[in-house]
Amino acid sequence: MAAMPRIDLDALEPTNATGYPPPFDEPVAGRWQRKIGQAARLTELGARHVVLEPGAWSSQRHWHKGEDELLVMLSGRAILVEDDGETEVGPGDIIAWARGIENGHHLINRSAEQCSFVCVSAGDEQGGSYPDIDMMWDAKSGFMHKDGTPY
Amino acid sequence: MAAMPRIDLDALEPTNATGYPPPFDEPVAGRWQRKIGQAARLTELGARHVVLEPGAWSSQRHWHKGEDELLVMLSGRAILVEDDGETEVGPGDIIAWARGIENGHHLINRSAEQCSFVCVSAGDEQGGSYPDIDMMWDAKSGFMHKDGTPY
Repeated sequence: MAAMPRIDLDALEPTNATGYPPPFDEPVAGRWQRKIGQAARLTELGARHVVLEPGAWSSQRHWHKGEDELLVMLSGRAILVEDDGETEVGPGDIIAWARGIENGHHLINRSAEQCSFVCVSAGDEQGGSYPDIDMMWDAKSGFMHKDGTPY
Repeated sequence: MAAMPRIDLDALEPTNATGYPPPFDEPVAGRWQRKIGQAARLTELGARHVVLEPGAWSSQRHWHKGEDELLVMLSGRAILVEDDGETEVGPGDIIAWARGIENGHHLINRSAEQCSFVCVSAGDEQGGSYPDIDMMWDAKSGFMHKDGTPY
């Protein structure tokens, strides 16, 4: 028997866990994620609710080979960083990244308040890369240096 | 050269087009959709920004065989209708439907103001059904009566 489909965020434990090797884990220590896709038993869509504490990053700046991503800002303000520069985003803004576009992106909360958003994804988890640091990722080997040696 | 990934809603023409045969098209005449997934060249994620005028429906009540759906309310209030009853939803609410769950859903704007949301989907467009009316759909034949004869 399925519950009503509105996600009860209070019933989901937020986690700040990350698989990033040190020191790349430090900027995401203030990123609190709720796995809403898993809670709703979605298998085709990945979906997370994310709260960024002041100073926290959404991720290391990255792009995906095989996955589309889309983010809806719910509250607060954040700075979107890409190759081309920075853009401030706020509530109601929708941001989308097509798979395979090699322009890394992430959000940084430079404000004094929390911000929150929903991030969804779909496609093939082939891997991706991190333009600002010596790290790349693929589904088989996990996090690696850019010469292919594992972390 | 990709544009910055924040979706410029003002640059996208809203459409109230529907493939529903009459009279099932009438309740969605006040549904104005912007194809944000297409604008962002997404191929794995379907994504639409939707405004419902007072009285409008998001769709006929339906479920999908092969697609997950997730909706984020941006503004206004709407009534979510499912087999189990009705729930009011508003800004920041996140609603998710796993593929294959045969519990039809839609939103109705019973308020005096517009409401808006983002709706995303992923998976296989196999088809689905409409529990309240004599209609079903599959990717090969389109909209059909429940005895399989086409509209």
